[in-house]
Amino acid sequence: MQTIKEYVQSHKERFLDELFALLRFPSISADPQYKDDVLKTANFVAEKLQEAGADNVEVCPTAGNPIVYGEKLINPSLPTVLIYGHYDVQPADPLELWDTPPFEPTVRDGKIYARGAADDKGQFYMHIKAFEYMMRNNALSCNVKFMIEGEEEVGSANLGTFVKENKVRLQNDVIVISDTSMISMEQPSLETGLRGLSYVEVEVTGPNRDLHSGVYGGAVANPATILSKLIASLHDENNHIAIPGFYDDVVELSPEERAALNQAPFDIETYKSDLGIEDVWGEKDYTTIERTGIRPTLEVNGIWGGYIGEGAKTVLPAKAFAKISMRLVPNQDSNRITELFKKHFENIAPHYVKVHVKPHHGGEPVVTPTDSIAYKAAEMALEEAFLKKPIPTRGGGSIPIVALFEKELGVKTVLLGFGLDSDNLHSPNEKYGIANYLKGIETIPSFFKYYAELSR
Amino acid sequence: MQTIKEYVQSHKERFLDELFALLRFPSISADPQYKDDVLKTANFVAEKLQEAGADNVEVCPTAGNPIVYGEKLINPSLPTVLIYGHYDVQPADPLELWDTPPFEPTVRDGKIYARGAADDKGQFYMHIKAFEYMMRNNALSCNVKFMIEGEEEVGSANLGTFVKENKVRLQNDVIVISDTSMISMEQPSLETGLRGLSYVEVEVTGPNRDLHSGVYGGAVANPATILSKLIASLHDENNHIAIPGFYDDVVELSPEERAALNQAPFDIETYKSDLGIEDVWGEKDYTTIERTGIRPTLEVNGIWGGYIGEGAKTVLPAKAFAKISMRLVPNQDSNRITELFKKHFENIAPHYVKVHVKPHHGGEPVVTPTDSIAYKAAEMALEEAFLKKPIPTRGGGSIPIVALFEKELGVKTVLLGFGLDSDNLHSPNEKYGIANYLKGIETIPSFFKYYAELSR
Repeated sequence: MQTIKEYVQSHKERFLDELFALLRFPSISADPQYKDDVLKTANFVAEKLQEAGADNVEVCPTAGNPIVYGEKLINPSLPTVLIYGHYDVQPADPLELWDTPPFEPTVRDGKIYARGAADDKGQFYMHIKAFEYMMRNNALSCNVKFMIEGEEEVGSANLGTFVKENKVRLQNDVIVISDTSMISMEQPSLETGLRGLSYVEVEVTGPNRDLHSGVYGGAVANPATILSKLIASLHDENNHIAIPGFYDDVVELSPEERAALNQAPFDIETYKSDLGIEDVWGEKDYTTIERTGIRPTLEVNGIWGGYIGEGAKTVLPAKAFAKISMRLVPNQDSNRITELFKKHFENIAPHYVKVHVKPHHGGEPVVTPTDSIAYKAAEMALEEAFLKKPIPTRGGGSIPIVALFEKELGVKTVLLGFGLDSDNLHSPNEKYGIANYLKGIETIPSFFKYYAELSR
Repeated sequence: MQTIKEYVQSHKERFLDELFALLRFPSISADPQYKDDVLKTANFVAEKLQEAGADNVEVCPTAGNPIVYGEKLINPSLPTVLIYGHYDVQPADPLELWDTPPFEPTVRDGKIYARGAADDKGQFYMHIKAFEYMMRNNALSCNVKFMIEGEEEVGSANLGTFVKENKVRLQNDVIVISDTSMISMEQPSLETGLRGLSYVEVEVTGPNRDLHSGVYGGAVANPATILSKLIASLHDENNHIAIPGFYDDVVELSPEERAALNQAPFDIETYKSDLGIEDVWGEKDYTTIERTGIRPTLEVNGIWGGYIGEGAKTVLPAKAFAKISMRLVPNQDSNRITELFKKHFENIAPHYVKVHVKPHHGGEPVVTPTDSIAYKAAEMALEEAFLKKPIPTRGGGSIPIVALFEKELGVKTVLLGFGLDSDNLHSPNEKYGIANYLKGIETIPSFFKYYAELSR
């Protein structure tokens, strides 16, 4: 029987080749034209689960993209771990900013460059390879279930129904998700909170047609100008979000909790130079770590209106649009926030334009426990692999499934992430370190071992 | 010898077919991919000038699109009229809003629907047909020169050089341009002023790459949000333009002049229902006629940044852009205004983003005389054709050539426009009335006749 270290050493070439094959599928869930690639990706994942030794592998249809399920139930007396991940990815544009094609994985100084490398293909695939090791070396110490979905990047619209309809099949003692970041390879960490999300699209309509800006300009409200004024008003001079009631349910951390949070190693100068900015920006009286971890935010993800082509066109556009998302913290409720935004935006719109707010999707914020045996097992596994105790952090991202599972199955989650904030998630040149990938595969079996031990 | 009325009656089918052929060329000057169609259009215009009887017809190359020239010099003792027009058109997008294809002219209830129908193909072509009549019926009473350019919609960048290099060839006593609107077929009018233009493109840069809005949102300035704030600040609460010095050179009209201007028939309710707006918008203490005629304006012609595709992408964009144009009135100087805008915009940009202002093009405002014999001749010709005396109006649009000619050749212009403000210039479903087209052809020879008489 090989140790996991030996197994990774002797199989790492294949582990990389398989991940590259997975990364070559442009499984973009936001854009309908990739529907076919999304299905191919699901089948590929199912096939690999089967090869690794899973039973009852199934590509489960949903109203949207299918969910891949597989399991290995060795003994009812042992605890059951459910691995969640997603095989869909963010759109790759702007394409021109990629140094190498987003769906042709390329290795540069030890990093795998490809859309989905870290979010989440590279991370969930670690679990399939760790599982393969445990199966072939008779080292599986827990029952395990895999649920890999294809709509995480568009709000997991159909996951809720699937979970409700499969409560028995999905029953488990802990959910493990590798879809987050750690501080660095020198300083492992475990995210203990995720922000919720409210994503809306706004449309401002002025005249019933595009107009000549010379003939009508100055006399008819310009939707692009009005939209700019509306967006500008959503943050006040202290960069607080100016939507009435927005902060009502926000849980304020105690001075001690904030102090603890700010213990995490963070160098503002490195942060700024990595991003190429002269200064950071954000809510008054909060640090950068707090702004991205424990505070809600409102960001314009896209804005467009009028003539955006080559050269100049003197038009007064009929419409202007924006995609706006808000990150939520405990105990904000995504539906309530969406409602508040809609009301407020319709409220502040002047009578000479019409506005329409279309909710896209949402997700609830969560805090994961640090006193559970699963968290303890994760700490031990990371310390064994990195020779350093991981520290708890608050993540800025959102994974709707976490709150959903807590609600539907009453199960807590461990966020065992091996990515880095600098991996360019959702950006051109997304990457994932080969070392992170292999280290993850190496860490997972110890988690299973410790979790089984502590569960006895 | 036929009268012009008889001639139009017997040739109108051909007049329409020729215009339709001209309208089928997608001569969009803003977009390089139509370069070829632009050249074909120039050749077509030259060919038609020749057929109509012009001498020395030439497609004159410039650094950009060619200028079509042609002339008929019958007698040095007679006055010379220079006809200016442009064969290039605005881009046709948004295409989905056209009821019929923009470059397949279609007639619906007496109107020709096509990009360029009124601006300016349908209007300059009237002069070629009127010229054809005068040639074939021995009715030409002035020397005539044609200069039809191909870059009016992108700022006539190369026209200045051409004019400077061809002062002798272009020498004339009056310039006639049909590229403006009249009030209605029941109430003819003559525009006596045109606004100038300053067109810029702004770029706001935040981080050096698109970022995950969950990981970085709330901690890094979002260029789309900052651009919105910058644009919002360009108009104050009274919709005055908030650029220091912007109004310094603006010529204020006397109460009498303003009263006279507001005599023009204008029904605010019809205006609002035609545009489908609940209310008008604009600078405090000025009427709609004044806002579009004698006041400078600032309009966002296009805005874009971040993810603008299908669905949702949680990205904090690296850059956001806007195309902004300002209409200028006497005596504002387009270069000075562009400079003021650039300084101000760079000035108000916060230090956590970078801004870049790129000037596109500009043009100077003009006022045309109402006491010249050319204006008088135009009045007489319109009254003869419409059986009603035309009234002077101020146009909101810009035709850079007018100021340029005044400067370079010291010649004044008559704006003999037959379009309507409701012709959807620069918009989907641009149209030009068949009646307007034929009435224009019928009016032009009388202008020549009266102008020659009054010049004796």
